[in-house]
Amino acid sequence: MKGLSCFLERFVTDERRDQMAQVLAHRTKYVTVVLEDIFQPQNASAVLRTCDCFGIQDVHIIENRNEFNVDPEVVMGSSKWISIHRYNQQQNNTREAIQKLKKQGYRIVATSPHKDDVNLESLDLNAGKLALVFGTELTGISDIVREEADEFMKIPMYGFTESFNISVSAAISMHHLKHRLHQSSIDWQLSEADRQQVYLQWLKQSIKKSDLLVDKFYKDIQTSI
Amino acid sequence: MKGLSCFLERFVTDERRDQMAQVLAHRTKYVTVVLEDIFQPQNASAVLRTCDCFGIQDVHIIENRNEFNVDPEVVMGSSKWISIHRYNQQQNNTREAIQKLKKQGYRIVATSPHKDDVNLESLDLNAGKLALVFGTELTGISDIVREEADEFMKIPMYGFTESFNISVSAAISMHHLKHRLHQSSIDWQLSEADRQQVYLQWLKQSIKKSDLLVDKFYKDIQTSI
Repeated sequence: MKGLSCFLERFVTDERRDQMAQVLAHRTKYVTVVLEDIFQPQNASAVLRTCDCFGIQDVHIIENRNEFNVDPEVVMGSSKWISIHRYNQQQNNTREAIQKLKKQGYRIVATSPHKDDVNLESLDLNAGKLALVFGTELTGISDIVREEADEFMKIPMYGFTESFNISVSAAISMHHLKHRLHQSSIDWQLSEADRQQVYLQWLKQSIKKSDLLVDKFYKDIQTSI
Repeated sequence: MKGLSCFLERFVTDERRDQMAQVLAHRTKYVTVVLEDIFQPQNASAVLRTCDCFGIQDVHIIENRNEFNVDPEVVMGSSKWISIHRYNQQQNNTREAIQKLKKQGYRIVATSPHKDDVNLESLDLNAGKLALVFGTELTGISDIVREEADEFMKIPMYGFTESFNISVSAAISMHHLKHRLHQSSIDWQLSEADRQQVYLQWLKQSIKKSDLLVDKFYKDIQTSI
């Protein structure tokens, strides 16, 4: 894979390569975001954009009743730079997503506005990597998430109004957790393997007709053997 | 004023009174929010709702080219509980708003995404109370704000996408500053005079036909003299 990256690198400008290196240094899979059945495209799109801004590489999209759609004006191209994992093959896809994340070692942190939940600011970051689950706009997380969650988290509120829009909740959470990760000694950056895989994905995204170049690369290798 | 509050208190439930006391304890004027010429009602409305959630009592709305409108579905009644100050009598109202805030002792902190600006996380909270100015959606803060600002602040971003929606920027800023105020020894709560004035405003909002009761209160006083 590294050979292919080296080959493709020649087709992007030095400026773009530098930008990718800078962005890559801030990417993390220590925190991941899960969106369960969001129905307003501008909400999901705003979350994707915020993930890119705060370096959250993976977003998991569960589609049960609502199909996932992106609003191009809100997403502003950001979906190209993050890794989107979609779960939509069954009638209910929540359990599959949660189990996959648990197998990958994620703590499932469900966001909900209940009084007994842990505050965002008190969430233990040292207990391992975490998947933040945001539920659908009106009714929040599903019963399956409620059953399967390892922890429940809320953003403390001090007013008469008792809820945030989902894009606002997600942005506050990501900003705060990213800030705390930066201040911690946690090894939150991508592993070398993940870094290479993401870099290759970005190179392909940046080059027009990159699939033809990839084909050429593999043909050249075969010819040279 | 206190007498009037005591009189009106009798017309709200104990529960509501307790809620008001709790919310009042978290209200602040140490941080205030200024919106300059926002044109999408859902953006301005989302900011008002977030102000209520994080206890920011005062919001200053500058209307130059764009009239301020609220989207009821987004604002969810929150505008009743904050103090909205509108500036719309002249062709350009920015200077008036800024000068008024400066006279009240506010540092003008303009939000903009420039590289040299101070990061939100490094903003000095001990240097006095601050007015966060958010500019219009497409072009940001005006030249007048740029000239008059004491400081410039940005939210650090680490991705390819370079901007947040204004409701997201405002929410991240308010959450972060509120959190730091809570951890600090700064006296950020309302003064006794402000507390009484806000409480009276809330009582009036909570009682149907409160103006008739206020009239009765003053008539009774005159009769008893």
